[in-house]
Amino acid sequence: MNRMKCIISYDGSRFEGYQIQKEKRTVQYELQKALTLIHKGCDIKVSASGRTDAGVHAMGQVLHFDTTLSIPEAAWQKAMNAHLPKDIWVRHVEAVPPTFHARFDVVKKEYRYKVRLSKHFDVFLRDQVFHYPYPINTEAMREAARHFLGEHDFTSFCSAKTEVEDKVRTIYELEILEDGEELVFRIEGNGFLYNMVRIIVGTLLEVGQEKKQPQEILAILQSKDRKAAGKTAPAHGLYLWDVVYDDN
Amino acid sequence: MNRMKCIISYDGSRFEGYQIQKEKRTVQYELQKALTLIHKGCDIKVSASGRTDAGVHAMGQVLHFDTTLSIPEAAWQKAMNAHLPKDIWVRHVEAVPPTFHARFDVVKKEYRYKVRLSKHFDVFLRDQVFHYPYPINTEAMREAARHFLGEHDFTSFCSAKTEVEDKVRTIYELEILEDGEELVFRIEGNGFLYNMVRIIVGTLLEVGQEKKQPQEILAILQSKDRKAAGKTAPAHGLYLWDVVYDDN
Repeated sequence: MNRMKCIISYDGSRFEGYQIQKEKRTVQYELQKALTLIHKGCDIKVSASGRTDAGVHAMGQVLHFDTTLSIPEAAWQKAMNAHLPKDIWVRHVEAVPPTFHARFDVVKKEYRYKVRLSKHFDVFLRDQVFHYPYPINTEAMREAARHFLGEHDFTSFCSAKTEVEDKVRTIYELEILEDGEELVFRIEGNGFLYNMVRIIVGTLLEVGQEKKQPQEILAILQSKDRKAAGKTAPAHGLYLWDVVYDDN
Repeated sequence: MNRMKCIISYDGSRFEGYQIQKEKRTVQYELQKALTLIHKGCDIKVSASGRTDAGVHAMGQVLHFDTTLSIPEAAWQKAMNAHLPKDIWVRHVEAVPPTFHARFDVVKKEYRYKVRLSKHFDVFLRDQVFHYPYPINTEAMREAARHFLGEHDFTSFCSAKTEVEDKVRTIYELEILEDGEELVFRIEGNGFLYNMVRIIVGTLLEVGQEKKQPQEILAILQSKDRKAAGKTAPAHGLYLWDVVYDDN
């Protein structure tokens, strides 16, 4: 048995999320269908680094699966892409030790969130950036962003629906990049709670609109109350950008 | 009665072309539906500069319609965008003399065709650029492009299905721009036949692949035979970019 690790990108707009659900179009369903075809009908299950919600995109989602087939890595990529719909693309395939696990071995994840500030709506980006045609104070947002760095209890920045008990996570980086009319939030951490990036971005945008002060972030974190933070930014601006594993 | 001129952009990927057809999703249908709602149920007909095929996009399609309503230009834009789906966007509305005609008064049109040369497929651009991951000789293409300039009979570069009799058109400019991994064909002319831009691009790509020589273009034009030219490049790389009218 060989364990294969894959890095994939997908446009989340026509999927009802990553995780398989009955009678819904999901990324996991399409991946398992493609692999089952390659394995002449034998069911193949894939394990990803984590789920993404409906509308959320991935540049570098990581997954693994086990196979009895011995195919060179480049041929795996070609075979999978030939069997997948055009909104999923396998970027890379490699053989890994059987102890590798795409979810349990994650060391660091990077998400990006794209906001378009232009007054003009771009039809070609309608499902790929959050259109936010308002004046914005990026310096205030950058000041607020610094308060998220380090280890915190992120209860205030997590959907109340979550079942996870330990809400302490560490944010390593939170940059706000300006790229023409686009604002890109780049956030790296050891793990993220349900809706955490979208609530952080929604709250930072309220700081950008001067509805909240940068220094309020600490009080919001301390309150451990979802209602203290800002709105959840919409799914279609969010990208799971990179998943990092330990080299050993 | 007021005649209004609109400049619109649309993502052609989910439309079966511009022109209204029974039980199909078309741009014209969505525009007329929106305007009829704004006019409380009175049927409003729009006239565009020309049709675009299924999958073809527009950055600056132009159309006109007549109305009994007196609404400021900016409010027209807002009202139309509020009633249109997200893959159509009204960029500009202005009142024009009743003699203006979006189709008959066209002086010049600009199309662009986007090709992506990267080996990596980009899921986010799958419906917006033609993915062409092959080595390409851009100098040979530029040499070939020069032969299209000026007035020619474009029978060889026109779908055989066309009913138009006069196939003489003038090309003012045909540039090939390199933008990162994208190649953009920018073509300006006094008018274009059915599939003309897509056949020109398809033929230039064959020159780029060194399957045809640049100097063959003249012989292809002279043959007046569709079979002498190259393949029709796919619809999803094509954009109606700009339509120019006489200022008078």
